[in-house]
Amino acid sequence: MKINYPDGRAFNTPPSKKSPVNTSAKKKMIFGDRGMTLEEEINESNKYYRSHDIAVIYKKPTPIQIVKVDYPKRSRAVIKEAYFAQASTTDYNGIYNGYYIDFEAKETTHKNTFPLKNFHQHQIDHLRACQKQGGICFVIIKYVSLKRYFIMPVDNLFEYWNGQRNNGPKSIQLKQIIDCSVEVSPDYNPTLPYIKAVQSLIESGREKK
Amino acid sequence: MKINYPDGRAFNTPPSKKSPVNTSAKKKMIFGDRGMTLEEEINESNKYYRSHDIAVIYKKPTPIQIVKVDYPKRSRAVIKEAYFAQASTTDYNGIYNGYYIDFEAKETTHKNTFPLKNFHQHQIDHLRACQKQGGICFVIIKYVSLKRYFIMPVDNLFEYWNGQRNNGPKSIQLKQIIDCSVEVSPDYNPTLPYIKAVQSLIESGREKK
Repeated sequence: MKINYPDGRAFNTPPSKKSPVNTSAKKKMIFGDRGMTLEEEINESNKYYRSHDIAVIYKKPTPIQIVKVDYPKRSRAVIKEAYFAQASTTDYNGIYNGYYIDFEAKETTHKNTFPLKNFHQHQIDHLRACQKQGGICFVIIKYVSLKRYFIMPVDNLFEYWNGQRNNGPKSIQLKQIIDCSVEVSPDYNPTLPYIKAVQSLIESGREKK
Repeated sequence: MKINYPDGRAFNTPPSKKSPVNTSAKKKMIFGDRGMTLEEEINESNKYYRSHDIAVIYKKPTPIQIVKVDYPKRSRAVIKEAYFAQASTTDYNGIYNGYYIDFEAKETTHKNTFPLKNFHQHQIDHLRACQKQGGICFVIIKYVSLKRYFIMPVDNLFEYWNGQRNNGPKSIQLKQIIDCSVEVSPDYNPTLPYIKAVQSLIESGREKK
């Protein structure tokens, strides 16, 4: 039985069989191939950034619409009926060195394209609103089979999104993503050093403050 | 039967009996007494700020630990067993005019004091970490029976919090809150114009950027 979140992510995805034996020799060999989902890689990295006072960024909890709660005596409340709700925002936000940071993270199994249907209009609207307020907004795209990670500024995403709405291509080509993004290589600590890429976006002025 | 969130807020609190008849004449008379909880007042205000491009601030969803999900055929997933989880952060964050904003909101029925047990260590730690990164951090305190609202900078909160941990007073006196905070009066649109107070904190340099 397959259980999915409303956005298509599998619920309680079991760790990949590739998960390595936990020895440091093995660990060194398999950077970026430890069977972690992009979400896990970002959460791990955020933990590192917080504990090193580099940035305070969290994934927001999945919004749940609660219908029925039981309150058994002498134990804590149990939610007995609830549903996954549509988020109004992106999944991640926080602060880095005075900058408001807001992003969405998506992984794809495609090799040469990235289908725009991975995004929803409300995410685009939210990213636009945050950028207008001076936030640093981007998306993190992971090509699972290529093991490549890209930090793409939202201005480029908006361009492709608008194109698609005007009968343009429904996907972004990998080549286009390479051209407009900063690539990040997975590492040991943090797992995915994406803040380095964010800093380079800020310095290159491709993100305004 | 009383059902509470882990932080003591009542679950699905019914609107107060004071809720007015919905006529605009009545509405004008009862600013700040429309039977709204502080959370509802802030959510309404945030909606106003977003729709007027003033700020993009949201309440984070309550974190839920999901244990069991059913996936009936031809209908959406139903969560059958779940529990309220402890949040790692404060309830609200977002961006206002280039500033990262982070705050916690608390209401009290006390008239002259505000018990510090309304806060948790993880909220204090989170506010400290965000301030260190250059965020604008504060708490909104509502005295329900006095119908008064205060925006208190976190530096003052930290002072009282540390005092309490060193065997100082377990509560902050209303007089002390008046002295260190910016008071906000409820209004019609937005319901609670707290961004005005935040702007005055920024201008007075009581919050660093």
